[in-house]
Parts: sequence; structure tokens; C-alpha cells
Amino acid sequence: MKQTVYFYFDPVSPYSWLAAERFDAVEDAGGHIVCRPVLFAGLLKAHGTLGPAEVPAKRAYVFRDVMRQAARFGLAFRGPPTHPFNPLPALRAGHAIKDDKARQVYVQALLRAVWREGADVTVPEVLGDILRSSGLEPGPVLEAIRSEEIKQALAKAGQDALEAGIFGVPSFIVGHELFWGSDRIDSLIWVLRGGRVD
Amino acid sequence: MKQTVYFYFDPVSPYSWLAAERFDAVEDAGGHIVCRPVLFAGLLKAHGTLGPAEVPAKRAYVFRDVMRQAARFGLAFRGPPTHPFNPLPALRAGHAIKDDKARQVYVQALLRAVWREGADVTVPEVLGDILRSSGLEPGPVLEAIRSEEIKQALAKAGQDALEAGIFGVPSFIVGHELFWGSDRIDSLIWVLRGGRVD
Repeated sequence: MKQTVYFYFDPVSPYSWLAAERFDAVEDAGGHIVCRPVLFAGLLKAHGTLGPAEVPAKRAYVFRDVMRQAARFGLAFRGPPTHPFNPLPALRAGHAIKDDKARQVYVQALLRAVWREGADVTVPEVLGDILRSSGLEPGPVLEAIRSEEIKQALAKAGQDALEAGIFGVPSFIVGHELFWGSDRIDSLIWVLRGGRVD
Repeated sequence: MKQTVYFYFDPVSPYSWLAAERFDAVEDAGGHIVCRPVLFAGLLKAHGTLGPAEVPAKRAYVFRDVMRQAARFGLAFRGPPTHPFNPLPALRAGHAIKDDKARQVYVQALLRAVWREGADVTVPEVLGDILRSSGLEPGPVLEAIRSEEIKQALAKAGQDALEAGIFGVPSFIVGHELFWGSDRIDSLIWVLRGGRVD
């Protein structure tokens, strides 16, 4: 029996990309991934914390760290043309895709486009290409992201994240267990395979 | 030929403990560890950031995360009687030990005492026991930590950490490469073994 693993992410976070590169390992361990796009800036504001891009030493570190990890895992790293960028259209597109599996395919394609290929996902045509490459018709999704319903769905995901104790991205939720960071996938897999804290 | 690996840590950080549990792996990869005790609170102040213990959701998460990691690695976890605690005597004792290897033995014993055994290292007798169990004479060290020289040595380590771009603990420095967190030891080992970012 599969266990639901909620994946809260924002494409501005390169660690969200590194996490998505390991979805296979989560699924092999019995996880059913449900992607929930969430605005990272909203989480930071709610907790009164600074994002890594707002602390100069941390910003410099994060990119170096991501490049080392990408190299170690044999992944190409390019990064977006500007950073941070407005993630709202890309986040909302995720909420406009109702099927969990279709959304997961889009999320992985989105994160790879931004971080491996250097795509500018603030451009509607670029987002359209990613949707198309994920097997989706771009028109209805790009239309839906302007609707109040989808804006509310994104806000709701942010509220749910805060209620689950989330303060950063990417975060995974399995039952009542929270895992923060692409570097916690091994811990998540340990729990999926029955690991427990006394 | 061994490569020098500077280990910046504060015993208030349970991740400093988890990192010290993996010193063997760093040495096996050709690292010569040099422990540099540093006041975490001073780094946070200098960067204008909040520590995980100051953000309620993060504080709750950190302890759960450490317990899961300890369980996964088969390590007993107990944690100190109060947290945060005043780390200054324990930090200064590290600076009073001039030999790198002797300091490393003390640092590992200190971190294990705090996090595995629940020792209160603000008590001089407890610190004395840790020094003794590390093969050191407690008297001269406990005397030295009240000296201006040792207070300055700790302040100097903090300045060096900031100049190296350090914003959190534990951090490792190899050449110009910074690694933040016990979860970056695999990345550190990759670099020690010749891994390079283009």
C-alpha cells in the first residue's frame, strides 16, 4: 500500500529541483507523491525569517553548494537568467492541473527547465512549452492561472503548509512527519520503509 | 598528503554533534581535522539572522529531525537538560587545548556528552570530567578559560569564520570551499577525493 508524500516546493528554490530529481527513489520506497506548489516568500513572511537569497553569505554559499551537488550527481546545472524571479504563474499552473500524476510530470519538467536548462518561466510562451512537453494542452492552464479559484488554491496550499509546520522549501509531509530539504530524502525513505523514532 | 579540514562548531548545535560522529569518514578520505570552536550566536548576530531555536516551527522541526537521523544511524539521542545553554566555557576550553589532535578528542567527547548523554556542560565539574575522559588534566584548562588570551582566541575564531563566509554551524572549510551542515559531509568527502565544480 502506497503512502502519500506531499511535496511542497517553489521553483525559485534550486533544492526543490534537486529533490524532484529523486522522485524515483521516493516512489521506489512506496511513496505516492502529491505536488503542492507554494509561495516560498509567503512562508518566510509568515515566520518572520529571511530567505537564503536575502543573506549575502548564504546566497553565495547556496549556489556553490547546489553546483557541487549537481556535479556529484552528474546533473547539468545552469540556473535561471535572473534570480529571484516571479514564480506565481509557474506555481499557479501547478494548481490548475488537477490530476496528481500529470501535475508531478509538469513539476519535474518545470524544475528541470529552470535549473538544468536556464528557462525563464515568467514568460508565458516558455511556460506553455513546458506544459506541452509534459503532455498537456497549454491554453486551458494558462487561462486558468488568471482565475480567482486558482489564486485561492495557491493561497490555501500556503496556509496548509504553515499549519503543517513548514517554514522552507522543499518540504515533504508523510502523515505527521515533516522533512525539510532535498537532503532529507534519505530520512524520508527511512520512514517510508518503517523507520520510527521511539 | 592530508588536506586540512577546519571544523567550525558550537555544542549548542545538535548538527555539530552529528557531524563529529562522522570524523572517521572525513579522515578516511584524507582530511586532517582542525576543530575551531565558535560562538553560533555571534555568527547569527553578525549576519542579522535568526537561529533555528528562535523560530518556533524550526525549533520543533530541528529536534525531530535530529532524533530521526540519530535513530537512522543507530546513535543514542538524549540532549542537554536545558537548551539553549551557555556554551562559552565549553568553547573556550577548546581554545585552551593547543594540540589539534587533543582538541579533536575533546570536541568529540564534548559533543557526545551533551547530545548522547545529556550532560550540562555549563557546570565546571562536568566539563572537568569530559576533559579528563579525553586524557587531559582539567585544572590548567579550566584555569585558562578565564584568561583574556583565550577569550580573544574565541573571538578571533568568530572573525575568521565570518571572513570565510560562514553563517551557521557546523561548517567545514577545505581550501576556499565551505560546507555547511552535518549533511554536507558527503559533499566534503567528494571534494577531498578530487571532485570539482567546473
